[in-house]
Amino acid sequence: MKHIKRFLGFTCIALCSLQSFSSFAYSEEETKIVAQLRDQALGSNLAYEILESLTTEVGPRMAGTPQDALAVKWGVEKFKALGFDKVWTEPVTFDTWIRKSEAAEIVAPFKHQLNITALGFSVPTPDEGIEAEVIHFNTIEDLIEAEEGIADGKIVFISRKMERFRDGKGYGPAVKARSTGAVEAARKGAVAVVIRSIGTDSHRLPHTGMMRYKEGIKQIPAAAMSNPDADLMLRIFERGKPVTMKLSLNSHAGPEYTSHNVIGEMTGSEFPDEKVIIGGHLDSWDLGTGAVDDGAGVAITMAAAKIIGDAKVRPKRTIRVVLFANEEQGLVGAKAYGKAHANDIANHVTGAESDFGAGPIYAFSSNVAADNMPVVHKMAKLMKPLGIEYVDNNAGPGPDLWPVYNAGMSVFSLKQDGTDYFDLHHTADDTLDKVKPENLAQNTAAYVVFAYLSANSEQKISR
Amino acid sequence: MKHIKRFLGFTCIALCSLQSFSSFAYSEEETKIVAQLRDQALGSNLAYEILESLTTEVGPRMAGTPQDALAVKWGVEKFKALGFDKVWTEPVTFDTWIRKSEAAEIVAPFKHQLNITALGFSVPTPDEGIEAEVIHFNTIEDLIEAEEGIADGKIVFISRKMERFRDGKGYGPAVKARSTGAVEAARKGAVAVVIRSIGTDSHRLPHTGMMRYKEGIKQIPAAAMSNPDADLMLRIFERGKPVTMKLSLNSHAGPEYTSHNVIGEMTGSEFPDEKVIIGGHLDSWDLGTGAVDDGAGVAITMAAAKIIGDAKVRPKRTIRVVLFANEEQGLVGAKAYGKAHANDIANHVTGAESDFGAGPIYAFSSNVAADNMPVVHKMAKLMKPLGIEYVDNNAGPGPDLWPVYNAGMSVFSLKQDGTDYFDLHHTADDTLDKVKPENLAQNTAAYVVFAYLSANSEQKISR
Repeated sequence: MKHIKRFLGFTCIALCSLQSFSSFAYSEEETKIVAQLRDQALGSNLAYEILESLTTEVGPRMAGTPQDALAVKWGVEKFKALGFDKVWTEPVTFDTWIRKSEAAEIVAPFKHQLNITALGFSVPTPDEGIEAEVIHFNTIEDLIEAEEGIADGKIVFISRKMERFRDGKGYGPAVKARSTGAVEAARKGAVAVVIRSIGTDSHRLPHTGMMRYKEGIKQIPAAAMSNPDADLMLRIFERGKPVTMKLSLNSHAGPEYTSHNVIGEMTGSEFPDEKVIIGGHLDSWDLGTGAVDDGAGVAITMAAAKIIGDAKVRPKRTIRVVLFANEEQGLVGAKAYGKAHANDIANHVTGAESDFGAGPIYAFSSNVAADNMPVVHKMAKLMKPLGIEYVDNNAGPGPDLWPVYNAGMSVFSLKQDGTDYFDLHHTADDTLDKVKPENLAQNTAAYVVFAYLSANSEQKISR
Repeated sequence: MKHIKRFLGFTCIALCSLQSFSSFAYSEEETKIVAQLRDQALGSNLAYEILESLTTEVGPRMAGTPQDALAVKWGVEKFKALGFDKVWTEPVTFDTWIRKSEAAEIVAPFKHQLNITALGFSVPTPDEGIEAEVIHFNTIEDLIEAEEGIADGKIVFISRKMERFRDGKGYGPAVKARSTGAVEAARKGAVAVVIRSIGTDSHRLPHTGMMRYKEGIKQIPAAAMSNPDADLMLRIFERGKPVTMKLSLNSHAGPEYTSHNVIGEMTGSEFPDEKVIIGGHLDSWDLGTGAVDDGAGVAITMAAAKIIGDAKVRPKRTIRVVLFANEEQGLVGAKAYGKAHANDIANHVTGAESDFGAGPIYAFSSNVAADNMPVVHKMAKLMKPLGIEYVDNNAGPGPDLWPVYNAGMSVFSLKQDGTDYFDLHHTADDTLDKVKPENLAQNTAAYVVFAYLSANSEQKISR
């Protein structure tokens, strides 16, 4: 299949050089329009203004909280205020989790308060807390390989530190401790698990995030401590004395709740049913105001569509901005979207999600049929002045585009510099002051180029 | 007086060039010894090990808490373990303040939890908290100049942000809001004051620190919010709607307590009663582990004295390391030391305190009689390889040396790069991971040079 694709791509490139004069003139005109819109986006403060509005007027918006409903209302009103042609919501139903108080301290051999946070969907401790000896594992793999019963009656501490990379590749290997730590610790007899936060910073602000239980394995409380607290724990363990911790978590499961995906469209001029999907997720964790995760993605894609929508020449196809509900607790909005639009996937020509913070975009990749390469090349040419290089045709979808990608939609990946992303991710520090307006503008410009050219391509993009 | 001093200095420099051969040989030998000790300190991890011990085994040590007593015990044991010739404690008595829970939220026009901390010695709010409209002032000066009754029944918010400088000169102008905010707000009728933290960082970690009430002015609760929270407040105020806040502080005054200055000496070989004073303060605020404020000063000066004490050739005079009690809540240990040693000030030949974090030293200044300049020049020569320049003869004392300075003791100031100091100062983020071992070693090397040469000078240093 790959060979055929490559051959077709080659043929196409040859054919494209034989394009008619009228098509050439059209292309020249389109390039001019897109370059102008790109530069307009680059000089625009719109994305920052949208983000400022969301983080100030709504703030944290954890799925199922009153701020979730407020964010949906905000999304609808903002789309309308920006003059989107169509604005609507689609229901997304899920189980909720309610955060209450959380505290931990080292009781022996030295007393220390720890800065911790409960992991999403952790069960609570008993009201009086859990006081137990702590057993330390460097990694989740070490815990899995340890003997049965090794953690009987103990609190498991996993200390692996996430590594910093521009593309965030340190996250995958580290996050296993968060998602599966409680299950693996319980398998070894533990009464609770406390991990080093999955984050690259050195601040006393723990990182929350989802954890999972497994049918048939005892559900034990799970929390994360800040990096400096984990460093302290290691120094205490180095002294070779038994370490005792007291842990109190009161968070618990809540009732079922229905939130909404919020959708806004700028209608295409020739093929209004065919659409290019851009967006981010509207929910955030509750500790910060969700500026980089994922207010930035919401703001960038809303601004890009608005700038295209206001252009003198509308692209042929529709640009649909989807603000997904409840990404954080399991891509629930994305799955609902995939289900609701299962019969319309053929009209979802391509898409890109912005959900990796607010750093500048340095590269992009595509995942399209070989005969779509001319539009990719055009894109590359118009992205270049933004400092963005084309990488390859192996793009994966953003988290919320998995369901439509799995249903066959082509995707693009606009790669943000995430060097600092995991300093802020899921912490109280995820606030507007961390976002540089000029980076948001560069992102918006890149989404303008991507969305306009994808929506306006002569040939309908496919995978 | 200044002219005479300068003349004497000039004469001395002339005389010094006529020094006898034996004195010259002595000086050469001394230079060799000090250079060797300096380089030994530069390669030593001792200060870092001391700091690691203090922050791990004691941690936060706010005056009057159980950790205060633990720190005193730690200080005595550490001096003894390091082989100091004399180790003792001197009582320091003061009123205490007990931190309990603290919370604040913006209630209207948008709901937001704020990350705040009570200021030291703030009175509590009523149990049910205070809910009131917020009135915003850019600066404490604006508040002072405002009309009577302007804040009647309101919570005053002061938003001035501290500026970042290498020498920390942004602190003085900004800290007035913290120390006098409650008094000035109460004068205008306010029910509470909440300031932007006195700090240069952008993290959700508020900075605590002392505030003061004034006889005859109503005592109102006082707190500080983190910088990102203050930024958010300003954005909310920009919308022009009334802002309501709820504030709950439960901290309160506690009983009188007696802590101790902890003192260790390396006895001089010729004039054991004459001493050079180095040190820092042993107490810290309670939010972090007091690594940079002032564990670093404790560690640097203990290590420097230890390295000198172990040298083959002891300096003529004694090196006294003083770990002052309760600096944070009013230089209480320093005042007690000044009082206890009032009759011995003549034997305090000179001193330098380390209490500005753990950044590298880039300059030093002296405040000595003009005929002491030869030792200052010798010092400058031996400091230079550490990247330290001599500035002038106008040094002020470190905070804890004010009482002995006021009694006439000469002082030196070893100036640390404090660019990042107020990112951490009085926050939960003041932890060991912020300290670079190589910077502590450079500081130790500088204190070795200063203390050895001061203690060993031919002429007794005076002011």
